[in-house]
Amino acid sequence: MPFRLDTRKTDFSTSFQALLAMKREAAADVDHAVAAIIADVKERGDAALADYSLKFDRVTLGPQGARIPREEVEAALTRCDPKVVEALALAHARIVRFHERQKPRDEDFTDSLGVELGWRWRPVEAAGLYVPGGTASYPSSVLMNAVPAKVAGVPRLVMVVPTPDGVVNPLVLAAAHLAGIDEIYRVGGAQAVAALAYGTQTIAPVAKIVGPGNAYVAAAKRRVFGTVGIDMIAGPSEVLIIADKTANPDWIAADLLAQAEHDTAAQSILMTDDASLADAVEAAVTRQLASLPRQEIATASWNKFGAIILLQQIEQAITLADRLAPEHLELMCARPEALSDEIRNAGAIFLGAYTPEAIGDYVGGSNHVLPTARSARFSSGLGVLDFMKRTSILKCTPQSLASLGPAAVALGEAEGLEAHARSVSIRLDQSAHDPHRQGAHEHQS
Amino acid sequence: MPFRLDTRKTDFSTSFQALLAMKREAAADVDHAVAAIIADVKERGDAALADYSLKFDRVTLGPQGARIPREEVEAALTRCDPKVVEALALAHARIVRFHERQKPRDEDFTDSLGVELGWRWRPVEAAGLYVPGGTASYPSSVLMNAVPAKVAGVPRLVMVVPTPDGVVNPLVLAAAHLAGIDEIYRVGGAQAVAALAYGTQTIAPVAKIVGPGNAYVAAAKRRVFGTVGIDMIAGPSEVLIIADKTANPDWIAADLLAQAEHDTAAQSILMTDDASLADAVEAAVTRQLASLPRQEIATASWNKFGAIILLQQIEQAITLADRLAPEHLELMCARPEALSDEIRNAGAIFLGAYTPEAIGDYVGGSNHVLPTARSARFSSGLGVLDFMKRTSILKCTPQSLASLGPAAVALGEAEGLEAHARSVSIRLDQSAHDPHRQGAHEHQS
Repeated sequence: MPFRLDTRKTDFSTSFQALLAMKREAAADVDHAVAAIIADVKERGDAALADYSLKFDRVTLGPQGARIPREEVEAALTRCDPKVVEALALAHARIVRFHERQKPRDEDFTDSLGVELGWRWRPVEAAGLYVPGGTASYPSSVLMNAVPAKVAGVPRLVMVVPTPDGVVNPLVLAAAHLAGIDEIYRVGGAQAVAALAYGTQTIAPVAKIVGPGNAYVAAAKRRVFGTVGIDMIAGPSEVLIIADKTANPDWIAADLLAQAEHDTAAQSILMTDDASLADAVEAAVTRQLASLPRQEIATASWNKFGAIILLQQIEQAITLADRLAPEHLELMCARPEALSDEIRNAGAIFLGAYTPEAIGDYVGGSNHVLPTARSARFSSGLGVLDFMKRTSILKCTPQSLASLGPAAVALGEAEGLEAHARSVSIRLDQSAHDPHRQGAHEHQS
Repeated sequence: MPFRLDTRKTDFSTSFQALLAMKREAAADVDHAVAAIIADVKERGDAALADYSLKFDRVTLGPQGARIPREEVEAALTRCDPKVVEALALAHARIVRFHERQKPRDEDFTDSLGVELGWRWRPVEAAGLYVPGGTASYPSSVLMNAVPAKVAGVPRLVMVVPTPDGVVNPLVLAAAHLAGIDEIYRVGGAQAVAALAYGTQTIAPVAKIVGPGNAYVAAAKRRVFGTVGIDMIAGPSEVLIIADKTANPDWIAADLLAQAEHDTAAQSILMTDDASLADAVEAAVTRQLASLPRQEIATASWNKFGAIILLQQIEQAITLADRLAPEHLELMCARPEALSDEIRNAGAIFLGAYTPEAIGDYVGGSNHVLPTARSARFSSGLGVLDFMKRTSILKCTPQSLASLGPAAVALGEAEGLEAHARSVSIRLDQSAHDPHRQGAHEHQS
């Protein structure tokens, strides 16, 4: 049974606070093991990768190393259902088009003093994409992680994927092929993250690592952060549906379950001002669960973390949604745009009855890598900017330095940083003495 | 004596690698102490803050708590040198104008299928700015951290600053006043970070914490990350100057020392293709050091971490600079723009002989909070986007869902996520049966 909260009840604020504070992830203490694996890969490179692949995946890396050759990728394509490959191609094209709009613009201007200012965005030199093996090896995630990097213009895109017992999902290779991944390696776990961060004899290091993974992968990403950039560490997925009496309870139930089937730690929440809708949704969830292949997972998630929150007016959802800061927010109500405008914190918003979150997971075009665990209060979904960085540019002329310099000298002196002040004043003196020399100074030698 | 490297020498690549790998920071093991402080503030709130302020800063927080009242801020203003306040005001105005150009644009478009797509940027609901006490209490840093948040539109901006023995730098309060900080609290250390992240009886929590601090502050920021967003953890500052024979050795020396005076762990590097310039700079550094107030610090930095790298051609600097990925890069050479265009990794670039880095530290307008320790390979300086987050928006019509739905169903089934597929197909069936109903579904109750 999901939690039932009611804004009319006196204990509502306490119950809602408890819902917010609920821990859905058991922190696995794998940090020591991960530290040892990383140190080993840093030290022994490919030899360490070979050992771990044999130990964890029962895979022997041949003399050519972990690289999956192009022919193997192309062969995998022929083993895929053409209908699914076509769906992937549609998804890919839409994700590309959406993300192309995210390319940032450079800035370059000269102010009234003659100072040239601006910045430029450049892609990182190489990015690594972690893809889990086994049942969580999702081709859609390959697209969602790879496309923003390609659109950003990253010249080298590397994928690592464990292949337990030699098995790799051919659709994952198909997605990698579609997305234009440059190199694919059959390694996983903390060892793969270490190889991407520090490089081995056959794998050149990258500057940024993204992609989901288990506790070992997450711990490894935390550890290599600083040496490389990482994306957010994703927690269990979650959806908040805000619905009024205009909504179809069967559709709401289907969407709550689409979230719940991900993981027993996933969370599905409904907020509604209609008590009878709440009851109808709960009944529909029970009915739909009966025939669901991942019934066990979805039931565990719904019973343990699911919640139905009854509102007095639909507008109460605004404050509550902002406090929850859901990864996914579906608005199935009369005026979804009006409600959406009022909400500050959400990873992605799905408007109206005909926009199930699953559309956004696959083919909408927006990214499905989104902030979880209330981090939508301060962070964004994955995008093109995650694979670029900004360099600011400044250029003074002798005249503009003469205008700005005295203020810089005053501040340097006030902060007790005399060498800062002198690095400005030495130029002011020089340019006062010889105003016609503009940077071409022959030193005495 | 600084390191001397020469690209003509056979051991150059080893020496350069050693320079890259050099650890400049001793990792202070304060994590246990910090964890205890955070837990205590989370538990006891203001009472814990009062205890730590007494213990670490010898300050008694009165019954009104840690808040510095507006009158005290205004009184501080009258104690500041008007010339410095004027310089701060100039800096503030220029930083505002530069950052206003960073405001991101929202996107909203309808594609050929009738799907509405886009995103919107919203400021975080509240941001906290940590300001160190004592000699590292820099008013310029208050501006650099606060202005991007204000420009982003953050409605509540909170500053914390320790006041050892009750002393606060009046210029820091003046900068806070100029920048429009909403609340100022006289607390510091890990306890201040905890108060910002979790809130106390008198300090409401924020969503993002930025600003420099000592090892305790850095460890506390790492620990509360996830509960709130944080900026990068800044390492010791660094400059790379690339200069050819047109450059003035005295100016180069002044800029190297402006960096070195920050901290004994700061790093100043010169790359040049002119051996006699290299010698002249080294001599000028020695000469200028003699009269520098922070001589001891600058000498330690220059002798321990300074380096002069001799190139065969100036173009060699491009690859080397990209590997160093310096926080600050000064180009004092004949065609600085041409060289600048070729370089991928740098936090900020200062072009030409008349742009000492100190101008960027204070009054240029660009931000002086920049990526250190080679992280310019994957990250950017502080900016408006650090105080905003993006929410993606998706809306399908019955018709566009009918076009896109089958591909989503195919992908959901291929990934073994049947409930995902069903959340789409349930709507396709319904809309096939009743194509005129567009979201107004009365449920049976």
